[in-house]
Amino acid sequence: MAYQSLNGSSVVNYIKDCAAMKQVFADTRGLSAKEVGDGNLNLVFIVSDAADSARSAVVKQALPYLRVAGESWQLTRERMRFETQALLLHNELAPGLVPKVYHHDGEMSLVIMENLAKHRIMRGPLVARARFPHFADHISTFMARTLFFTSDLYLTGPQKKALQAQYINPEMCKIQEDFVFCNPYMNSPENKWNPIIDAEVQAVRRNSDLKLAITEMKQSYMTHAQALIHSDLHTGSIMLNETDTRVIDPEFAFCGPMGFDVGALLGNLVLNHLSHYGHTPDSRERSAYQSYLLEMVRDIWNAFARKFEALWIENNRGELQPAAYWEYPGGQEAFAEFRRRYVLNLLRDTAGHGGCKMLRRMMGIVSIWDITSIEDMEKRAVAERLVIRIGSRWVLERGGIDSVDDMIRIVEEETEGVQP
Amino acid sequence: MAYQSLNGSSVVNYIKDCAAMKQVFADTRGLSAKEVGDGNLNLVFIVSDAADSARSAVVKQALPYLRVAGESWQLTRERMRFETQALLLHNELAPGLVPKVYHHDGEMSLVIMENLAKHRIMRGPLVARARFPHFADHISTFMARTLFFTSDLYLTGPQKKALQAQYINPEMCKIQEDFVFCNPYMNSPENKWNPIIDAEVQAVRRNSDLKLAITEMKQSYMTHAQALIHSDLHTGSIMLNETDTRVIDPEFAFCGPMGFDVGALLGNLVLNHLSHYGHTPDSRERSAYQSYLLEMVRDIWNAFARKFEALWIENNRGELQPAAYWEYPGGQEAFAEFRRRYVLNLLRDTAGHGGCKMLRRMMGIVSIWDITSIEDMEKRAVAERLVIRIGSRWVLERGGIDSVDDMIRIVEEETEGVQP
Repeated sequence: MAYQSLNGSSVVNYIKDCAAMKQVFADTRGLSAKEVGDGNLNLVFIVSDAADSARSAVVKQALPYLRVAGESWQLTRERMRFETQALLLHNELAPGLVPKVYHHDGEMSLVIMENLAKHRIMRGPLVARARFPHFADHISTFMARTLFFTSDLYLTGPQKKALQAQYINPEMCKIQEDFVFCNPYMNSPENKWNPIIDAEVQAVRRNSDLKLAITEMKQSYMTHAQALIHSDLHTGSIMLNETDTRVIDPEFAFCGPMGFDVGALLGNLVLNHLSHYGHTPDSRERSAYQSYLLEMVRDIWNAFARKFEALWIENNRGELQPAAYWEYPGGQEAFAEFRRRYVLNLLRDTAGHGGCKMLRRMMGIVSIWDITSIEDMEKRAVAERLVIRIGSRWVLERGGIDSVDDMIRIVEEETEGVQP
Repeated sequence: MAYQSLNGSSVVNYIKDCAAMKQVFADTRGLSAKEVGDGNLNLVFIVSDAADSARSAVVKQALPYLRVAGESWQLTRERMRFETQALLLHNELAPGLVPKVYHHDGEMSLVIMENLAKHRIMRGPLVARARFPHFADHISTFMARTLFFTSDLYLTGPQKKALQAQYINPEMCKIQEDFVFCNPYMNSPENKWNPIIDAEVQAVRRNSDLKLAITEMKQSYMTHAQALIHSDLHTGSIMLNETDTRVIDPEFAFCGPMGFDVGALLGNLVLNHLSHYGHTPDSRERSAYQSYLLEMVRDIWNAFARKFEALWIENNRGELQPAAYWEYPGGQEAFAEFRRRYVLNLLRDTAGHGGCKMLRRMMGIVSIWDITSIEDMEKRAVAERLVIRIGSRWVLERGGIDSVDDMIRIVEEETEGVQP
């Protein structure tokens, strides 16, 4: 079907004509659709059956950029290809941790997937101090499996190159190259920041050590094709409830550094931690929830590292290196040492990328709702100054990070005695 | 024209029908062809005009693997695409340092290029102790220009991704992954080595520190997409004479670590240096030529580093980073520091990759003519033991290499007082 953007009526007709959707809607007579997207780049419809509200699905369709013709239109359609193929792959590698895909249509630039009616985007509940007893377990499984099975530790060389070719994703990479690793730290018209922290923001922009370190992280992002990463794994890309966790929106996926995913997640949890200086006036409540979040950071990393290494030992068939390479007296110890170094470097990358993700949210085009939702600008500044200090130290001190406790210690040192 | 393998008669007819070849052969009546390839994977014809022997060209055509059908055949054709597109790009980036391309034909898997009748493959003359007063200048220009202009230091993010997509080269990468970074250092049936150095070879295969370091270099080769590299830049891929230098055979080209190219070259010069313990019995002659080669190594690196940095300063328009990123008080010093660190890391990668390239030639499937042409196996072993010691130290000590003098010092320390 040639591309046309759908509306509430044509999306229902599309589903009625779609054989694959019979698995969800056996009877299509009572279907209706509601547009719930922001209408900027994607249309998002929830389609449901009036006779049985449990029967529903989400239709996500890429829109062309409205004011741009030609090539950009193609790039937009390409974006939906990356999202679709990554969703399908993540369903294979981490079943139950991503929305199920019912149907996809390249020409129409759309994907139809499970409606997560009982899940919420993670940011809101975190600001409301919700607890998620299974989250660390779920997300560490998601990261360990999606990263390990798409790396050279599991894939053969030719398999990895095929994956890399399928995910050359220049438009989405450029967004991160610009807005995570460059523009926020220089004069650029789209940058936004709280005027109260102007001195701190300007200090970042002329801190040579920090700018060199950020550039090294950009180099890692641009040239270290370690595994297929989600590449936007913040708490706005996670939908969950007490028992279930799903990772959504993988349109930035490409072969890049694993630490960018783990760092995005841990950095966003620390951003939320610091936002409670504005959101949670009761110091006992605040401190208890902040400790909970730091424990979550620790649990996620430690579970991730343990699962990642266990997968490696159980599935050691990748190009880097075949098991036979370690078959000699002392070889198993050397292989263990290689795993140790690999995971340690991944932790240090996590600190570096996590730090950049924290910093850019304070002074670039993309702010962060956890913190911008603090109405009192002075209270907001308390959190923001801490983000800058902790993010800077994660990047600058990454070479000396030996365990996740070192990352947490930096948060604790910077927040000790802070009162909003 | 659908693929058919050419012979001495059909290649002449092909050229007669080819409009692009009029630039070389205005009159095609006196053309004749001679097959000069080894007939294994490629056909290579020299076509020349009987009336004017200065008019000639080389036709290189990929053959299918004879015993394999289907997919492998496609891969073979693909190989000629990489060679052709890299030759064209190198002609743009480093004119005069690669053979001119007259014509290429994807369906026929062939390229027609300049016949370098006055040049010789570098290995032979090096064994004969020839001197090439312009070589260090030429090859450092070739490397600086082809590497810089295909890196993120010059290209925008989307340009780099387009280049990367064009050079996803799994079959040729797999050859290097196996035969430079893996199989030589374990039990693998194709490995060959001089039985006299069996103890040294077996010691490499159970040296955990070395095997970890080699694995780190393999990781660099597989995942560090720094620039479009030639990826087989040894002295067998260089044709030259006293005044002119050409780099040939870029069919391994892909986006990988720059140090793999520089290291292949410097490592091969050291291999030749050590081969003179077998080839050059006169100790004064030998020592003079060995010093000459070490000066060449020094000159190549220093000229390369100088030219590379000069190109960067003059053409600072790449994604990593835009000039505006360094526009603040102290920013120029920080940019200089970034360049210094970048080039230093490149030198250390050069030592690591150069060391691997040396080691694999002593114990893998691919030996090296400079040394295998030493008939006396005991004399050959003198050189080979030194290759293993020096190659190992280049890989193991790369993190402490601060200048090319440190790499040369390792050669000098290991060869001090050696008598064949």
